[in-house]
Amino acid sequence: MREFGKIVIYGVGLIGGSFARALKAAGAVDEVVGFGRRPENLTEAVRLGVIDRVGTDPARELPDADLVLVATPVGQMSALFAQIAPHLGERTLITDGGSTKRGVVAAARAAFSGAFADGLARFVPAHPIAGTENSGAAAARADLFQGRKVVLTPTAENHAEAVARVQRAWTTCGAEVCRLTPEQHDRVFAAVSHLPHLLAFALVRDLAERPDAPLFFDFAASGFRDFTRIAASHPEMWRDICLDNREALLAEIETYAQQLREFKTALRKNDGAALETRFAVARAARRAWSEENIRQKSQAASTNKPCT
Amino acid sequence: MREFGKIVIYGVGLIGGSFARALKAAGAVDEVVGFGRRPENLTEAVRLGVIDRVGTDPARELPDADLVLVATPVGQMSALFAQIAPHLGERTLITDGGSTKRGVVAAARAAFSGAFADGLARFVPAHPIAGTENSGAAAARADLFQGRKVVLTPTAENHAEAVARVQRAWTTCGAEVCRLTPEQHDRVFAAVSHLPHLLAFALVRDLAERPDAPLFFDFAASGFRDFTRIAASHPEMWRDICLDNREALLAEIETYAQQLREFKTALRKNDGAALETRFAVARAARRAWSEENIRQKSQAASTNKPCT
Repeated sequence: MREFGKIVIYGVGLIGGSFARALKAAGAVDEVVGFGRRPENLTEAVRLGVIDRVGTDPARELPDADLVLVATPVGQMSALFAQIAPHLGERTLITDGGSTKRGVVAAARAAFSGAFADGLARFVPAHPIAGTENSGAAAARADLFQGRKVVLTPTAENHAEAVARVQRAWTTCGAEVCRLTPEQHDRVFAAVSHLPHLLAFALVRDLAERPDAPLFFDFAASGFRDFTRIAASHPEMWRDICLDNREALLAEIETYAQQLREFKTALRKNDGAALETRFAVARAARRAWSEENIRQKSQAASTNKPCT
Repeated sequence: MREFGKIVIYGVGLIGGSFARALKAAGAVDEVVGFGRRPENLTEAVRLGVIDRVGTDPARELPDADLVLVATPVGQMSALFAQIAPHLGERTLITDGGSTKRGVVAAARAAFSGAFADGLARFVPAHPIAGTENSGAAAARADLFQGRKVVLTPTAENHAEAVARVQRAWTTCGAEVCRLTPEQHDRVFAAVSHLPHLLAFALVRDLAERPDAPLFFDFAASGFRDFTRIAASHPEMWRDICLDNREALLAEIETYAQQLREFKTALRKNDGAALETRFAVARAARRAWSEENIRQKSQAASTNKPCT
């Protein structure tokens, strides 16, 4: 028997679609039903075999669903949770793919409390660290989560069995599952993900709005290409992430602006030693991170050991 | 007969070593002599076949050299130009690989004026847009310049024939040669290269100096990896570039800080529309750049047409 009978996915994009593809490839699911805002994307998802059917009525699809993945931009989750809550079955597990977790957990608490037996017990928040600048069902890949981390931020209300089964769904997709509290999660990702995205968006916009922008873009090379890859990310998705995690993000911008001021002072004073020392700290840390990353990946590949 | 008899390279690193390898691979040079600060790097360069000999005495190696490439960090060029000026032959061409051009041209004017027949006529400033975060002779590759742009910033003193021959050396390496004035060059690269490097160094240092840095680095993923690749760049080289181009760079930091303030205001006001609009401008510009880049590369590959 398969691990999951019916899975329902809200938002059949890069994350939702890849989750479906990965579980299908693993033979872990009987049927995948997809809901979404853009009918043409859902049609494409069926055509590509990402989902089996397009869902139209939550009241019909949810009561017998084994697992629901909400993989919409985080700004839509609050309304969506409220919409699906009355229709969830007594055994339906729910997880999400949101890049922020405090807001998502608060929205789940508001929507799911008392809405069905066990309340919040079966909503297990997740953040798969597998985003790319691509979006839509056509970007979905069965191997997207292979060797990637998925952060679970279980709540006090969670049943241990629900957490274990949701964890199994993500590891079946090939992911390494880690755990953080929602607060830890949002603080860490404000620094290592949300801030870099904002910085890349800001740089490209800064150039794009100059009257002689083509001259600048003409000479941009591989350093610029890699630095700004994430500036091609989904604007609505990142709007929601930034708003949802704005306190942590504002604090990160402040800290970062302080770094820039230090660099400015060093430049103004022609202080080469200060610049070089700062660059060297960054280079050493970046190289150590890169080597550790390679080491961990080869270790994970050989032992398949999750990070929890 | 080969295009060049003897070539002398100062600084046998990524750029200098790749220039040697590319001209050797093209059969365009008889002998390559390398000078440098680190004897172990020069020994390695001979062992790897990047250069034929280690130079010890400029007075012996320079008079019969056809071409000298100065590929040291730009901060060393002023002293180096003064050191080599008295020994250059009457027909010796000189070019450089510096990432800034106004300062390099000023240093060349100071060192080469009246130092040998034709004065500055045969110093043709160049900036190959082919840096990576790797350095040293071991990083040198014959195909490093293939399809990459090299910006020449010829001076008023240059002989047309000297410019043509230096251009030929770079195109023989596989590069597309473009021309800018030194001022245009420095303004453009402050924005598309020097600022992004500074921003990446600043982000990694910001994280590296936190007491709980490992927690942050643990969850950094592919967006972070690409955004910060250039933060592993050579600290001394980038110190020199930043100092040499500090006025343009300070202006760019100012403009960028203004972008960040706009984002901060939008976040503080919870102004999702402002964020999304700015992100969308950036995404559209980044995608257009990426597509134009791919188009140009395939066009250049099929027609081998230089950008001048």
